[in-house]
Amino acid sequence: MITRIDHVGIACRNLEESIEFYRVTFGFEVYHTEVNEQQGVREAMLRINGTDDGGSSYLQLLEPIREDSPIAKFLEKNGEGVHHVAFGTADVVGETQAAVDAGVRALYPEPRHGTFGSSINFLHPKDCHGILTELVQAPDAGSHGADRH
Amino acid sequence: MITRIDHVGIACRNLEESIEFYRVTFGFEVYHTEVNEQQGVREAMLRINGTDDGGSSYLQLLEPIREDSPIAKFLEKNGEGVHHVAFGTADVVGETQAAVDAGVRALYPEPRHGTFGSSINFLHPKDCHGILTELVQAPDAGSHGADRH
Repeated sequence: MITRIDHVGIACRNLEESIEFYRVTFGFEVYHTEVNEQQGVREAMLRINGTDDGGSSYLQLLEPIREDSPIAKFLEKNGEGVHHVAFGTADVVGETQAAVDAGVRALYPEPRHGTFGSSINFLHPKDCHGILTELVQAPDAGSHGADRH
Repeated sequence: MITRIDHVGIACRNLEESIEFYRVTFGFEVYHTEVNEQQGVREAMLRINGTDDGGSSYLQLLEPIREDSPIAKFLEKNGEGVHHVAFGTADVVGETQAAVDAGVRALYPEPRHGTFGSSINFLHPKDCHGILTELVQAPDAGSHGADRH
């Protein structure tokens, strides 16, 4: 079961500039930063609200750390903007399989490492009406979709 | 103050097909539908989770009802995908002004009619690092960002 909008992933050219934009314009603050070598990004999570499954919804600002990262390619093609939409679940493997059973291609055969030590997979945008869709399971998520914190 | 991700607005060519996609793939159900003549769309709201300001987060599926609607133009240029990101606030006028004061252009001089009878404004994507950004105030939103329901 999907229990929340976990985050909106946003491709940006300069992480500090985008952080400053969201701070000055909307008052959003950085909750967490990390580098994900596998995804080729450095990122900042701006926490917007808590959710009724015990988790939170974030904006995830993503800057590429190398030219062959998917975010670098996205920026080259589209410029800055929404890169993906991520849904939170307590069972990323099961939700991915349910999507595959519905005819949607998953990008990875097994979940990979996401923000906060989460387990993630992506669903192909061509199978999701144009939206790169991420499924996220917090590292401590039990059957009730517990928060990651 | 912005208190939640209110919704992610998604441009689609056929509302029924997108509704069916989200139902079959993720189990999301239609919470509300309406036609917004001013915006030139018919839309379906899929409620994903409750938020800790007493509101909810939705996916908003948008199909154009005429060729000159912004959603029709978006589809022609970009195909289906994320059209905008909307943040919930108890004070759409004040939040819009704060953004304008920070150097961001608002699309309307006064709020317009949004989903559920809400008051909305949009911020120019070129001033928001590529993202068309909406601000939403529920019709009954008081100082605590109360839910619209």
